[in-house]
Amino acid sequence: MKLNIAIIGPNVTNPKQYELGKEVGQAIARAGCILFCGGLGGMMQAAAEGARSAGGQTVGILPGPEKSEANAFIDIAIPTGLGPYRNALLVRSCDAVIAIHGAYGTLSEIAFALRLGIPVIGLHTWSVSKDGQPDPGIHIADSSEEAVRMAVELAGQQTGKTRR
Amino acid sequence: MKLNIAIIGPNVTNPKQYELGKEVGQAIARAGCILFCGGLGGMMQAAAEGARSAGGQTVGILPGPEKSEANAFIDIAIPTGLGPYRNALLVRSCDAVIAIHGAYGTLSEIAFALRLGIPVIGLHTWSVSKDGQPDPGIHIADSSEEAVRMAVELAGQQTGKTRR
Amino acid sequence: MKLNIAIIGPNVTNPKQYELGKEVGQAIARAGCILFCGGLGGMMQAAAEGARSAGGQTVGILPGPEKSEANAFIDIAIPTGLGPYRNALLVRSCDAVIAIHGAYGTLSEIAFALRLGIPVIGLHTWSVSKDGQPDPGIHIADSSEEAVRMAVELAGQQTGKTRR
Amino acid sequence: MKLNIAIIGPNVTNPKQYELGKEVGQAIARAGCILFCGGLGGMMQAAAEGARSAGGQTVGILPGPEKSEANAFIDIAIPTGLGPYRNALLVRSCDAVIAIHGAYGTLSEIAFALRLGIPVIGLHTWSVSKDGQPDPGIHIADSSEEAVRMAVELAGQQTGKTRR
Repeated sequence: MKLNIAIIGPNVTNPKQYELGKEVGQAIARAGCILFCGGLGGMMQAAAEGARSAGGQTVGILPGPEKSEANAFIDIAIPTGLGPYRNALLVRSCDAVIAIHGAYGTLSEIAFALRLGIPVIGLHTWSVSKDGQPDPGIHIADSSEEAVRMAVELAGQQTGKTRR
Repeated sequence: MKLNIAIIGPNVTNPKQYELGKEVGQAIARAGCILFCGGLGGMMQAAAEGARSAGGQTVGILPGPEKSEANAFIDIAIPTGLGPYRNALLVRSCDAVIAIHGAYGTLSEIAFALRLGIPVIGLHTWSVSKDGQPDPGIHIADSSEEAVRMAVELAGQQTGKTRR
Repeated sequence: MKLNIAIIGPNVTNPKQYELGKEVGQAIARAGCILFCGGLGGMMQAAAEGARSAGGQTVGILPGPEKSEANAFIDIAIPTGLGPYRNALLVRSCDAVIAIHGAYGTLSEIAFALRLGIPVIGLHTWSVSKDGQPDPGIHIADSSEEAVRMAVELAGQQTGKTRR
Repeated sequence: MKLNIAIIGPNVTNPKQYELGKEVGQAIARAGCILFCGGLGGMMQAAAEGARSAGGQTVGILPGPEKSEANAFIDIAIPTGLGPYRNALLVRSCDAVIAIHGAYGTLSEIAFALRLGIPVIGLHTWSVSKDGQPDPGIHIADSSEEAVRMAVELAGQQTGKTRR
């Protein structure tokens, strides 16, 4: 079964961020993975547009109860009606998560993934620390290609383990 | 965007029930809809096998946290980790629901769909009544073809309405 | 630890129904149980008013994100922000459920309780049947006193069993 | 209606951390608030013990489906069966959140509270930063008394606003 890889990031992006999201989406599709995202605009749309342009499949885990909320590049829309709880569902559904920039919504997804033991790859996004020490849980990538390579590799190591 | 149509039913089926589930799954795919189900065995597998055999797409909203739980005919597996709450999510995600036979899990899905105003079509399944009066909320179909025709028609009427 | 007993029923009631809800709430408090309900009006308010008048504690599992939504007789308000999913959470949180009248929301709670193996007592509420046969899952009570006696007894039998 | 204040923190504590949790729980009860927590051991138990010793009420939002999981100082146990999703529910249910130490579970609660606009007070806990800049969302307290004073004050400012 194909890997589910999520891209998480802000609902509004500048052109450079959008371009980066598209690149990561393309790389996910080229790696033979299914792109998961929150289904709305900004980074979510960029990633879906990129994945579709490379022939991949796209899934949008929407916060509201209507499919019409999905951006134009979503193949499978899941209108959860869960509001902000859908952030947790999106992460839970995936084998790895790539975070790009983002605000508190993205931070909540990163943190929930860390809690669940789902690999998190970060591209210009949040960092977290405790007692003044940076936490090594977020794997830092420097490019879209590297981010996807790390996601696929770390997700593969996960396979077969029981995830809680 | 394509319609999401769920088949809900028991996790264990006899051969006749399995055949019926396959037929309904095929009819959903031929109608150009995406088949949603709970992703496990029995009626869920039958429907997914049928939909795939007719070239359709299949989505499994799984109760556990592992994709490996999905039956072999699921294209997109959503390992929710929600346990029985996933019944509510499955229904919420769809434009119409077709219930075939089933036990209390299926009843919970029927009831949640009625609560949300999502059309429910019944094939040899539960009926509900209040004060001794049968409730007309479940639309009764007599064949797999009729069930899917009703689902598509009723889902279409739903479009554009705000669903709560 | 005290038993959690839920009263589920309609958001709007006539005076006779309200009186019945109050009686059941009083009986729950007198039995030393904590009253759980959906926290809003109608039967939920009646039950909370009854329980509080008998010196009991009341918990409201609210659908929205604001405590201000709770009726005036709720001691502990849980503003879940889950929308209709809160029906499932309410039932899941309790040791037994007493259903009084009610519409599809109540039906969804009854069905979810049956699915989870949580005892359901019915007072003038839904009945469910399969293949033309009434299902015995809902325990029918004839009075408020009997409903609470059955709830306490059936909840007690549940104790110690692993509930899924 | 009383304020719901959550204490979030690790499931295992050393004696000094436990003492701090008790102090914060006591201060919450003395401030006339209801203590919410995850209902299990460590910091959750410390806080509940403290709150109860000062005559306050305690609510435990449990991850599993059984009330028996609750520590001995919980008055109202809510056995959600939501697993790690209960972290989001706990935060959502409260008017302010006090984080004390903690691992990834606590981080997920902090992040979800930030996302919802629910005030977060931190005592020796996580910090988060973006683009190398510390984020000011977590209000740092230096003592148990100060943490509770800040929680009550910030929760009060929240009242009347629509929270999303």
